[in-house]
Parts: sequence; structure tokens; C-alpha cells
Amino acid sequence: MINAAIVGGTGYTGVELLRLLAGHPEVSLTQITSRAQAGTAVSEVFPNLRGVLDLAFSAPDPAALAHNDVVFFATPNGTAMTMAPALIDNGVRVIDLGADFRIRDLAVWSQWYALEHACPALAATAVYGLPECHRQAIRTARLVANPGCYPTAVQLGLIPLLEAGVVNADALVADAKSGVSGAGRQPKQHTLLGEAAENFHAYGASGHRHLPEIRQGLSDAHGGPVGLTFVPHLVPMIRGIHATLYAPLTDPSVDLQALFETRYADEPFVDVLPPGSHPQTRTVRGSNCARIAVHRPEGGDMALVLVVEDNLVKGAAGQAIQNMNCMFGFEETQGLRHTPVLP
Amino acid sequence: MINAAIVGGTGYTGVELLRLLAGHPEVSLTQITSRAQAGTAVSEVFPNLRGVLDLAFSAPDPAALAHNDVVFFATPNGTAMTMAPALIDNGVRVIDLGADFRIRDLAVWSQWYALEHACPALAATAVYGLPECHRQAIRTARLVANPGCYPTAVQLGLIPLLEAGVVNADALVADAKSGVSGAGRQPKQHTLLGEAAENFHAYGASGHRHLPEIRQGLSDAHGGPVGLTFVPHLVPMIRGIHATLYAPLTDPSVDLQALFETRYADEPFVDVLPPGSHPQTRTVRGSNCARIAVHRPEGGDMALVLVVEDNLVKGAAGQAIQNMNCMFGFEETQGLRHTPVLP
Amino acid sequence: MINAAIVGGTGYTGVELLRLLAGHPEVSLTQITSRAQAGTAVSEVFPNLRGVLDLAFSAPDPAALAHNDVVFFATPNGTAMTMAPALIDNGVRVIDLGADFRIRDLAVWSQWYALEHACPALAATAVYGLPECHRQAIRTARLVANPGCYPTAVQLGLIPLLEAGVVNADALVADAKSGVSGAGRQPKQHTLLGEAAENFHAYGASGHRHLPEIRQGLSDAHGGPVGLTFVPHLVPMIRGIHATLYAPLTDPSVDLQALFETRYADEPFVDVLPPGSHPQTRTVRGSNCARIAVHRPEGGDMALVLVVEDNLVKGAAGQAIQNMNCMFGFEETQGLRHTPVLP
Amino acid sequence: MINAAIVGGTGYTGVELLRLLAGHPEVSLTQITSRAQAGTAVSEVFPNLRGVLDLAFSAPDPAALAHNDVVFFATPNGTAMTMAPALIDNGVRVIDLGADFRIRDLAVWSQWYALEHACPALAATAVYGLPECHRQAIRTARLVANPGCYPTAVQLGLIPLLEAGVVNADALVADAKSGVSGAGRQPKQHTLLGEAAENFHAYGASGHRHLPEIRQGLSDAHGGPVGLTFVPHLVPMIRGIHATLYAPLTDPSVDLQALFETRYADEPFVDVLPPGSHPQTRTVRGSNCARIAVHRPEGGDMALVLVVEDNLVKGAAGQAIQNMNCMFGFEETQGLRHTPVLP
Repeated sequence: MINAAIVGGTGYTGVELLRLLAGHPEVSLTQITSRAQAGTAVSEVFPNLRGVLDLAFSAPDPAALAHNDVVFFATPNGTAMTMAPALIDNGVRVIDLGADFRIRDLAVWSQWYALEHACPALAATAVYGLPECHRQAIRTARLVANPGCYPTAVQLGLIPLLEAGVVNADALVADAKSGVSGAGRQPKQHTLLGEAAENFHAYGASGHRHLPEIRQGLSDAHGGPVGLTFVPHLVPMIRGIHATLYAPLTDPSVDLQALFETRYADEPFVDVLPPGSHPQTRTVRGSNCARIAVHRPEGGDMALVLVVEDNLVKGAAGQAIQNMNCMFGFEETQGLRHTPVLP
Repeated sequence: MINAAIVGGTGYTGVELLRLLAGHPEVSLTQITSRAQAGTAVSEVFPNLRGVLDLAFSAPDPAALAHNDVVFFATPNGTAMTMAPALIDNGVRVIDLGADFRIRDLAVWSQWYALEHACPALAATAVYGLPECHRQAIRTARLVANPGCYPTAVQLGLIPLLEAGVVNADALVADAKSGVSGAGRQPKQHTLLGEAAENFHAYGASGHRHLPEIRQGLSDAHGGPVGLTFVPHLVPMIRGIHATLYAPLTDPSVDLQALFETRYADEPFVDVLPPGSHPQTRTVRGSNCARIAVHRPEGGDMALVLVVEDNLVKGAAGQAIQNMNCMFGFEETQGLRHTPVLP
Repeated sequence: MINAAIVGGTGYTGVELLRLLAGHPEVSLTQITSRAQAGTAVSEVFPNLRGVLDLAFSAPDPAALAHNDVVFFATPNGTAMTMAPALIDNGVRVIDLGADFRIRDLAVWSQWYALEHACPALAATAVYGLPECHRQAIRTARLVANPGCYPTAVQLGLIPLLEAGVVNADALVADAKSGVSGAGRQPKQHTLLGEAAENFHAYGASGHRHLPEIRQGLSDAHGGPVGLTFVPHLVPMIRGIHATLYAPLTDPSVDLQALFETRYADEPFVDVLPPGSHPQTRTVRGSNCARIAVHRPEGGDMALVLVVEDNLVKGAAGQAIQNMNCMFGFEETQGLRHTPVLP
Repeated sequence: MINAAIVGGTGYTGVELLRLLAGHPEVSLTQITSRAQAGTAVSEVFPNLRGVLDLAFSAPDPAALAHNDVVFFATPNGTAMTMAPALIDNGVRVIDLGADFRIRDLAVWSQWYALEHACPALAATAVYGLPECHRQAIRTARLVANPGCYPTAVQLGLIPLLEAGVVNADALVADAKSGVSGAGRQPKQHTLLGEAAENFHAYGASGHRHLPEIRQGLSDAHGGPVGLTFVPHLVPMIRGIHATLYAPLTDPSVDLQALFETRYADEPFVDVLPPGSHPQTRTVRGSNCARIAVHRPEGGDMALVLVVEDNLVKGAAGQAIQNMNCMFGFEETQGLRHTPVLP
């Protein structure tokens, strides 16, 4: 049994962490902080948690936070990097669900996030928390950078191809679609139901913050720079990401189905579907599972990979718990065995 | 550990029973029958169950069904009454999620369902499976008639008022709203997304099959006939029922909040919200919980009760499991402690 | 050809006025004001108007506004009452789509809107713009108070019954449901798609601002005070209001169908459906039409009236144009003959 | 004034043709046929047309159809080819909204549609009804093959690049997303709201019937075969198509914005958005307009074209009217000047 706290818990990532941690048999949730909601019962803000979690938001208090085994940051970018160093000095392990520690090249990071990094030395020790690629390092990490929602889906879909060296890494296309919860719980005009329902559009076509993060992961797998066009779209639904990935095959003899099945054979949260499948986002709603299908349209030389995940679970809070399980030696599926609710 | 089977499992009630039973620690699911899908893996029809349930649909076989402790019927009306007698003769306990055994007056039943009843004698022994009213009888029942989705919500909201004798039982109004899954998984034009999305309308205003069932339960609580206007509506969402209930108070001194809190104090699946609340259907999505709020608009003499439930859980499959737990002496919340997923 | 201007045009009522006025053959739209968007092309904020309307928002300028024949106020409550007097002194006719002039009893108005009224004398001259009841007065009005969205639907459904004196006016129930656009275009948390989609709930059960407005209209029709319980609900869709109205009949011999057909025989924008119908909100989407069906469930003594309207058209901008047509002697359907888009 | 008839009018394309033709000042709609609905008033099936169109469905009668100037086929594939020859022999001009005449190579057609073609000679005379490419031929055509919904969007987005010869025609990717109405009004399980809402997935990844049609048009523009990967997806909304198109530039000096603006300068129904835009499907809902934005992500060598259209208007019925306007010498925008309804 470990003690855990959440910093910044009033957003969608926060409520999802609460739901998952409240049901985790090895975790005692000691605190959830929010300056704005300090004193309010969690179940008042998130009525789905009535009867599930008897906890109130509290103002962030570094001393109290230091009494935990692990602290999750579900804060806006730029917050975790100011608070993590002290916690880690106190022996607390930190999982940041924001972007502060995801990109190794801090110059690139600063360019996309328009901030000076507050703790470059600590950043250099962060482990990128994609267990399917970095499980060993995560186990002993003090600081884990939890991947972004789009980067998780795109990397899971393209990395097997790059590792196997069977595609042209200069001509990758990631056409990604996300439900609206990815834009957060802060009121914004474009995510009002009146604006986003019965509507579909791309955004960030000239460059999205998740692009450098994806590129870093793909380049690692490829062993060199990759050429990637990444276009995100907003889907009129609450949860779910669908990544449609295009990679020209350089080795047409490759058996894509076998390649993916082998790559993910031992992964508890990656499900390679039978040949000819089209994964649906709803089949992973509320669960930490990613489902993948691979195609070669008309038997040609284009590898087409379809990946779905729940952006708030495998794309955020669930993966954070998976990382925590790795870090503390729990079974990796502990607290994460939810059957998706369908319909 | 008991053995359970489901007859008729390809609809929304079926998949929900599968999800819940697959996670129930005291149940071994032996069979799920479907003539049309016999031989097909359950996870092929319901991909959310991939990796969760390793079972295929089979053709209904009375002999095999008889080897179970309990059989759930998730069949069209008229099927359970033909198969239940033989099972019960073999000592199997039966929970019918259809309407075959819900109405005691079989003449009324025949009028609304346009069928002759196949086993009147057995029907007379059926227990109406609303645990909040009939828990004792359910415990020893051989045959449980699981309530309809609308009847569950409307009865939970009005019965406390009728039991307490504080409202005019001749002038009750139940304005009910349901998500589209209540209409089932069979393809019908009016439940296509192209028809039902961005749309709202009433239906069955001249009389809905759930009306006699609701009237029976309310009359029992009142101790005499009641006057009820029941109007159902279709909401452009998948899951959830919201019942808005109007009952003129005859005793204006009553403390409605206390009345409901007391009535449901020991009920694990009925949550009476604080004064001034408006329950939201999403706060019970995927869970067996019903949430209730009571109001007296402008402090006047109209009792207003707002009830939400998940039509497929507390309104169908979840309540069936709750009944099973009662029947077999399991803890009543066993296998039903799901935290609703929000957003 | 008349000159028209809109004050406050960046909300949903504003864009709907723009759409309708841009296509009105008798109107030249001279200005649309918005402090926040001054200088921005209308088509940049509302891309559906690209190629339709070549106009930019401008800061509100009383002198320029005074050069119009009519000015529409699509402003927050409290604005029109400060600007209307000067315009009317200049001979401009004013249509207020807000609530400043809807309630004759200013003490009641102040209580619900928490403001002191700025021009009581002018308010006393305002005509309530429900053409189906006040057409003659609207024709010569200098100041029209355009009805609220809920009040339009509820009054159209209940007034025929009250005028005919066939129902118990002390026991009226209006269970109303609205799409999310009724809550406006300002970012608010509860109308985010992530909060409002796949969800249904009541709100304002203890008292909603539209209640006194509805009561005023019903009392006028009844010739005395009425007892009304009004409960609004939020529907997960963009547009549309459905009012489900319950009124106990005092004269059971009345032919409700004939009563409504006669009452609205000459009304161009009220469509009484054939017996047994259930009007759907989508059948009036984008149009100024209200559709009504009347029922007597099980042939009993409860009159059930179902009313649908587009909350932004007949419930706001369309009715404002209808009023303008009356005021300026245009054909009442001028510029309002849009066929609803279905699906 | 011309006489027009519709064969097969109970689907979504049919109701949209009805809406548009009912408001067309140069057209008298004489008949709409449906075997299943013969005798039923159109407004009973499509209540949005109450008061707009006073016509009943009739059984298809070749003699009666022959008295029209133009007949639209909104029938399943394979019907128009059996009825069109006789009509054309009688001097009637035919616009087929199905696929019978879209593909010149009838061997390819037979392979994708699994039918023998009934009138190869007539098929050879059909004109492909994409006015932006074939306006001259359409003017004098007796038989117009109205393009498919996806092919319209994809061709409008890629043809300017191919005509200009600035992209690698061997490596085109069309990632397309459609609202559910594209799957028609026939009840199917996968388009139930309970299945398609809160869900997103690809389909037909191994080959979709629109692929050969798109390839034909792109090859014409390119002057030779093209290599295209086309993946359609289902969006949880009613109307709208968004095509995200990727084409590697071979001439990096090209000014894409100028290229598209010039190409479509005189097109009444193609709107090239300002640089940096992301077109939204809702901005063309119910209108015949397509909106296009062009990007070069990060200033690189990938041309990214974003195209939106209403699949039932520019992607079907609206384009059919546009073709009719061309064929009969009406102004091309006649009857098609609808302002999209937003929100």
C-alpha cells in the first residue's frame, strides 16, 4: 500500500486519475489539490464519485505532498517543473501528466511551449513513460514524463514499422482524430456543444505541440530523423482518439499482421485485432487498452495502421497508473482491469 | 460460485449482462445463447469484451441450460414464459428481463402485449424484482420478473410519497426521458443516428406498455388505484433515463428531503442528493446507482422528484444482478461496484 | 426597403438575426455592433455567412443607430433599456430580444432580473411580441418585447385551453426541454460538449426567469392568476425546444383537436399536427414554425399538449423578424419561408 | 419552367432533392416515386415538408415519367440503368445520383458493383457531373452521372494540384470522414445512434466503391494513372464530409494559396478560405458550397488540402440541381442560395 497525491485535480485528467486511484487496491489517495476548489468535496465537483471517494480538494502544500510515495501532476504545462524538484529531493516519485518533461531537447521544448525550463538537470533524468518502449527504465525512474494522448496512439502504431525498418521513414503521415475532452474542462468557445457537435474540422495543421514529442519517439525507434506530417482533428464526441497512419513500405514482403502481433505479444494493454478489422474508439472507452489493426489497401505498398485509445485513459490517467504500477512493482494491470462500457 | 446462463444475448441488455457477469466474483458464466449468432465468439459481436470473456454464442439447449443455478432471459417478450417452466421444474432459478412476468393481472398483460400467457400458474408465483420494495420475497423467489427501465425510475421516485400518503394519488404525472439504447439493438429507422440525433420528441403518448406495470407498483404502495399520466420521450444520447415526477402534496407540512433520505437510508443503490440538486444521467452511466433529488418549486404544494438511472443497468441488467445477489445470498453490491465514467 | 441594425451580434441570437435579415428582401442591414469584435468581418466570426453578408462589426454608436428604421437588441438583459429610449425618441422602432420589456410588473421584473428598471415609463408602452396573441398591437408598436424561447412554446400550447376555459388553471404543468444553444455562445463549463453530451438533466427547478413571463401570458388568457409548475431541462443537442404540457380538463366533452385547429387556422407559423402525432424538434430546425400535437392519454381527463419550436428562430430571431414584418406592414412570412433541413 | 420528377425518393438524397426542388423557381415537381410508399403524402414521411410540398409518393410509371423535362434517379445502384434508356429515347434528360454511369470503364464498374451493365452504349454517352471540371459537356448532356459524395470532396481538393503538375501523383493520400447520413436511411445496425454516437472508426480500408471513381477523375486531371490511398471514416454526426488530402510537392516553389484561388475564382460553389484556415463541416451544412483550405505544414514539401462539403448537398442533391441548372440554361446558383444554419 502506497500513499499517492494529485496536484491539480479539477480537469478531465484529474477526475480520471481519481476514478482509477479510488479503485486501486494498492493505493491510498491522501490528497488532491486545487487552489480554486480548496475545501470543496471532490464528489460535489464530480458527482460520479459520490459514495466512491470521501475527499475534499485542498490547497497545494509542499510539506504535505512530500509525505507521499508518489505525486501525480495533472496541471497546466509549466507547473510540474517548479514543484517536482523539491518532491524528488524528498524521495517522492513523480509522474507528470503534462508536457514539462516529455521532450529531451529543451531548446525544442521551449520553442513549442514558450517557456524557459525551470529544472534542466532534473529534466535530463526523466523517463518517457511509454511502457511498451521503456518499461525497464520506468521501473527505476524517479520522474516519469507521461506521454501525450496523440503521441501515445501514433507511436504505438508506427514504432513497430520503424523498429523493423520496413517503411520509408521520410514519408510518414499521421491523420489523428480526437474527442473533445482532449481540449480540457476549462470553458472555451470552440468546445461548447453548440459549436463542436454536428461539426468536424482539423486544427493545428501548421504545427501542433505533440508533433516534436511524436518525432522524438519515432526517431528513437528509427535510429535517425523521420519525416512526419501530423494533422489532428476534432470529433464531435467526448472520449477517444483514432490515429490513421500511413507509411510507404520499403519491404513489400513484410507480414504486417505478424509483425504487430509479435511486437505486442506480451503487452497487456495493446490488442492487435484480426486481419481486416477496423477498431472503434468506443471499444476502449474508459479502459487502458489500445487496439490496433493493420492493412495494406488493395494489397499495395502502403502500410495503413489504425489505432484507437481512450485519450483520458491510455492517453493520460490510465497510462500514468500503468507507469506507477511499473515503478512500485505492482502487477502492471493492477487497478486497470475495466471492461469498456458498450454501448 | 454459481453457474449462470443467458438466453438471448445479442441485444444491449445481453452485452450489459455479459459485462457485469464476467466481472462477478461469484459467478461462472457457462452459456449465452443466440440462434442467429450460434458459433460466433462473443467478443466478435461485442469487441469491448475482447480479452474479457472467452465464450461463443450457442443455440439454446434446454438440457444444457438446466445445469445452471440461474438463467437470465434477455429475450423478446413472450419467450421466457415458454422456457421458464421446465427450468424451474429442474430447480433452476430464473430472472426474466423481459415483461412476461411483470404484471400480475394477466388479462391486463394480454391486452398490452397482445399474447396469451403460456404459464399462468407459474406467473402467479413470480416476484417483482425491485429490491427496494420486495427484497424479502426476492431472496427466496424461484422466478423474478425484472422491472422495466421506466418503471424502475418512476417507482423509485413516487413510492416514498405514496407510502407516506402525502400526495394526491389521482393526479400524478411522470414525464420520462430515455436514451436511445432503450429501443434496443435491432435496426429501426427511428433510432438511426441520422434520425435521432439533434432531435427530441415524445412517443407513446396515448399509452405505453410500461404504464400498467408502473400503475401496479404505485397502486401497491398507495393501497388503491392511482391516476397517472405517463409520457416517455426519446433523448439524443445512448444511455440514461431521467424521470421528472409531479405529485400534488396533500400534506404541505411534509419534509420531502427527510422523507426520501429516511426511505432510502439503507439502500446501496439509491442516492438521495442534497437539497437543491439536479441529478444528471451521466453521473450513473454504467453503474447500478439511481440518484434522486426532491424539490418544491417556489415552496409551493407540488412535489417535484427528479430521478436518474442508467436504463441498461439499474433499469435492466444491473438490477437483474442485484436480484441474483439477493437470491443467492451474496452481498447485494457484489459485482456491481462500478464507478461511473465521467466525462 | 427599410434600414435595420443589430446591437450585440456575436451570440447565437445575433448570428440567427444576421442569417435571416441577410435574406430578407425588404431589409437593408446597415450595422451590427459589438464592442469586443469591432472591426472584425462578420464572416470571420460566423463563417457560414462568407459570401452572404459583407459587413464588419462596429462599436455601438447611438447617432448611427438612430438612422435606422428598426433596431434589434440581441444584448444581455439590462442593455436595451438604457439605449432604447433615445432611439425611440428619434423615431426608431425597437425590438428587444432580451427580457428588459417582457414583464409589465416591474417589481416582479426587478426581483427576477436583479436590476432596477431604467425606463419604467417606456416599459409601460412596450408590446409583448407574440403575434398569435397581440398582432394588432404589434402593428403600431414602437417598442416590442420579443418573447423568451420557453415562454413562446409554453404559451402557444396552453393559451388555447385557457382562452376556451376548459382546463383547471390552478394545476398546470410545463415540462420543457431545450437544446444547449439556449444557454448562449459565451463559454460556460456546463455547456461544453464534454459535459452536456451524453447527458440529460433538469435545471432551475426552484424557479427560472421565464416563469413570471409565462405566468403573465397565461394569466392574461385565463383572466386571472394561474398555478403553473415549470421545469426546464437541458437536451444534448444544439437547437430545439420541446414543451410537454399537462392541463387537467374541466370540460371533458371538449374536442381538443378542433379547438387547436380553429385557434391557429390563420396562423402562418403554427402547425397543428393530425391526431395521434408526436412533433419532433428537427422538423422545425432553422424555421420559424411551431408544431403542436394534442392528446388525451387513454381517453382520460388530462389534456396533453406537445409543442416544438426552434429556440433560436420562433423562440428568438425568427419571431423578431415576424414582429418586424407586422410593424412595417410586410407580409408576415416575408424572409421567413425556410424549409427545415432534415436530416 | 420545367417539369421534373424523382424516382426513388424515400432516402436522404430524396428528401434533400425534394427540399431543394420545392424551392426552385424554375421547376415544377410533378412526381416522386416509391413503390413502398405509393399513396403516402410526402409530408407524412418527411414532416419538415409539411406546408411546403403538397405531393404524394406514386408507383413508378414510365409513361408518366416520360412527360418530364428531367428525371432524377435517387435509387439504389442498378436501377437507373434499366429505366434511363427509355426516358432518354423520349427526350427526357436524366440525372442519376447513383453510381450506374459514373465509371467509364464498365469492366471496372462491374467489378466494384457486382452487376452486369444494362446499357453500355448509353453509359458511354454519360457526362460526369462535376461542374467545376465538365461544365461545357454538362450543358448539352442528355445523361449526367452525378458524382459520389467522397469523390466530389477529394477531386475538388486534389485536381488543382494535379492539373498544375506540382505534386507526386503516385503518393496521394485521401483520409476522408463522413457523417452518418452518407450510409442512408435504411435501418442498419452500425448506423444506429446507440452504435455510431460517441464512436469513431475507419471502414472499407481494403477498398471502397468510391475509390475507382476518384481515381478516374484524378487520372484525367493528371493525364495518367495516379497512386491513391483512400480511407473513409464514420463521424458521429448527421451531415458533412471532411477530406484531409496529402500530396507530396514536386515543385516546392508553388504558391498553393494562389493556385487554388485562381483555379476556383469563378466557381460559385467553391470557397477557398484565407491562408491558415481550417474549414468546418457545419459552415456548409444544408448548402451547396464546398470550402477549401491549403497548408504546407511547417513550411515543408507536403501539400495539405482540407475540403468540407455537405454530403447530401454538394455531395449529392445540390450538385444534381447545379447540373440541372447547367443543362437547362438557368443561372447556376438558381434554387441553391441557402445560407448554412449555424449553430
